[in-house]
Amino acid sequence: MAARKKAKAKPMNAFYAQSGGVTAVINASACGLIEAARKNKDKIGKVYAGRNGIIGALTEDLIDTSKESAAAIKALRHTPSGAFGSCRFKLKSLEENQREYERLIEVFEAHNIGYFFYNGGGDSADTCHKISQLSKKMGYPIQAIHVPKTVDNDLPITDNCPGFGSVAKYIAISTREASFDVASMCKTSTKVFVLEVMGRHAGWIAAAGGLATDDSCDLPIVILFPEVKFDQKKFLATVDAKVEEYGYCSVVVSEGVCWPDGRFLAETGLKDAFGHSQLGGAAPVVAEMIQKELGHKYHWAVADYLQRAARHIASKTDVDQAYAMGKAAVQFAIKGENAIMPTIKRVSSAPYKWTVGKAPLSRVANVEKMMPTSFISKDGFGITNRCRTYLEPLIKGEDYPPYKNGMPKYVTLKNLAVPKKLDDFEI
Amino acid sequence: MAARKKAKAKPMNAFYAQSGGVTAVINASACGLIEAARKNKDKIGKVYAGRNGIIGALTEDLIDTSKESAAAIKALRHTPSGAFGSCRFKLKSLEENQREYERLIEVFEAHNIGYFFYNGGGDSADTCHKISQLSKKMGYPIQAIHVPKTVDNDLPITDNCPGFGSVAKYIAISTREASFDVASMCKTSTKVFVLEVMGRHAGWIAAAGGLATDDSCDLPIVILFPEVKFDQKKFLATVDAKVEEYGYCSVVVSEGVCWPDGRFLAETGLKDAFGHSQLGGAAPVVAEMIQKELGHKYHWAVADYLQRAARHIASKTDVDQAYAMGKAAVQFAIKGENAIMPTIKRVSSAPYKWTVGKAPLSRVANVEKMMPTSFISKDGFGITNRCRTYLEPLIKGEDYPPYKNGMPKYVTLKNLAVPKKLDDFEI
Repeated sequence: MAARKKAKAKPMNAFYAQSGGVTAVINASACGLIEAARKNKDKIGKVYAGRNGIIGALTEDLIDTSKESAAAIKALRHTPSGAFGSCRFKLKSLEENQREYERLIEVFEAHNIGYFFYNGGGDSADTCHKISQLSKKMGYPIQAIHVPKTVDNDLPITDNCPGFGSVAKYIAISTREASFDVASMCKTSTKVFVLEVMGRHAGWIAAAGGLATDDSCDLPIVILFPEVKFDQKKFLATVDAKVEEYGYCSVVVSEGVCWPDGRFLAETGLKDAFGHSQLGGAAPVVAEMIQKELGHKYHWAVADYLQRAARHIASKTDVDQAYAMGKAAVQFAIKGENAIMPTIKRVSSAPYKWTVGKAPLSRVANVEKMMPTSFISKDGFGITNRCRTYLEPLIKGEDYPPYKNGMPKYVTLKNLAVPKKLDDFEI
Repeated sequence: MAARKKAKAKPMNAFYAQSGGVTAVINASACGLIEAARKNKDKIGKVYAGRNGIIGALTEDLIDTSKESAAAIKALRHTPSGAFGSCRFKLKSLEENQREYERLIEVFEAHNIGYFFYNGGGDSADTCHKISQLSKKMGYPIQAIHVPKTVDNDLPITDNCPGFGSVAKYIAISTREASFDVASMCKTSTKVFVLEVMGRHAGWIAAAGGLATDDSCDLPIVILFPEVKFDQKKFLATVDAKVEEYGYCSVVVSEGVCWPDGRFLAETGLKDAFGHSQLGGAAPVVAEMIQKELGHKYHWAVADYLQRAARHIASKTDVDQAYAMGKAAVQFAIKGENAIMPTIKRVSSAPYKWTVGKAPLSRVANVEKMMPTSFISKDGFGITNRCRTYLEPLIKGEDYPPYKNGMPKYVTLKNLAVPKKLDDFEI
């Protein structure tokens, strides 16, 4: 009797895309997701990545990740940035823009796509949520799962967001290192160092500056949170007291800090010779205020992209969790889930234990998680022990990339396009 | 016959101090020096460190390093900043300020100091040179040896300066990481990233940005050197061409870049409401110019102290050389040398081999080594292969500090004062 293969339905392919600001570990999520899919080829066919996020889906610009070697996919785990390109693009509601949803369905259908994985923050969760409703609203069967990512740590329900732990580690270490530096210089030179960090609405990243000091390392750190209205007089008095006590002081200022009237500190009100207003950083504004009012010599730094791209000093906790979120997304998809996001659930802080949970996208999309009041010290310029207990596990462990000739070996994928089957589409 | 100890003269003590801007590895030199001295107790008594550089000598504020444990001294090797405090203070000539030299001799005599080790850059080499002449000019027997240190890499004779390799590594890695980031974002958002680095006169640090790209990693990097007069039109055309070709571009700008008329780019010419002129960075100036003239969205960062304090990603070559310079200073002192500086002599670039040499301080003091023209590419915006061959070995190898709870364990010494024997002294 001749051997006969049982006829099987060809499994549906998956679409995966990266969205919004990239991080040091979003590619670790891509790695976890693609590796998990490759282990479940009977359930998930190919993983097609969108070139530049959802735009890749709309323009049928799909990347065939099956063309990448196992080694290249593995290297994503230690490569910062978004390997397939990201985008800042928010889908409007179905009612407002049916044309784009019809196009998405056309592309999914043409490429046998039944799984939609979107790796991003709050806005992306909203896009993912809209896609998850396509089955019900437009009759195209698709499962949409959101993979959490944001350095801002502002997604709800999940205990923390992949991407944040590594930024927090970078800011904590940089603040400690720069504080040691200014401590050496303060006798005859710089007395105040100001570091500007990301976080326009939530002060999670600024809070990480507070980890620079701990029981084994006493440093004078003053934090300016976007959650706390800027009180110049109180701030200057606090800095001056630190300089009096320690001889120097470090200030960590969030880019989102506002004057009591709501204007950003970074809006300098300065104009150039042509009358154009200048968009400065918050750090130079704070630094000059200190020199003018207190007379202390300053230095200032703006970390900008360096902080979120610093894969060289990524947190091991963060890398592990980013990978786990990508992997869990595939596992949830295989179980038939739709309209959800895998989450990180904290079981205990000491010792740190966490598991993978899940949250409905309806409760995730467009919700911003701010710092709890109980995490900010009474004077408004530091973190509480509760905050420290929350933050510390997230920066734990080092996960160094491999190096060659003194430089980290980050992978650049081939990113070969899937042949197009449809007409062009104007976004 | 009773055993008799041969009467020995008590060995002279040593003075060691750190001067000028500190680095990620100046404490590695202190470590090398103190460990070498401890191994030669028959030749060198105690090592007294000046609190805040030469000021500690003038004010008789000496730190007894013999009170520090072997473990604490060993930890200096992986601790950034200046553990004993640094200073920006240049001794005038003997003719101009005999009073200070007489005070130094008084302090040296009171504490039996016969060795003077000064760890710094060009200005400090000048101070050290002046001290080395005290025997001849004022009859006090002292050997003065300068230990090279400067992130600016601008000391003559030595092939490179301890402190530079680690900054170079940090800038090369940060530029690579941020370039990966902007590459991910460029489709719908940021197209140009601008990073401001140190180096007011010499472009060595800016040049390190060129190492972000190599045979295995093709990235569009445009460098602005202080050695090259800023040509706005040519610069903008170069950036635009890179954006056209790659979709994005990274710019590394030295803080010392000047307009053709000699003004720093960082002098914005902006005034606030009170008419005070604003001291901005070069990065925001360059970034805004790009948006205004080319219309590209930008991000900018100013690394400032982060770059020179970044012990977490120090170059192993740099740490090894910093340690070796401290050790060599002691060995030269024991051999009776005076008025010299140990140097790094490059034997070969591939494979990289180096040995310890020495240079007379008369040829080191107040001489600034600029980037050779042959190191800057013809268009003025990049590095040549000769430059790459020079730079690459200096960033080679990682030398990670130990970590605890996700944070590097940097040592803070006890820094106990040596009891004073003299009256106060006004500087």
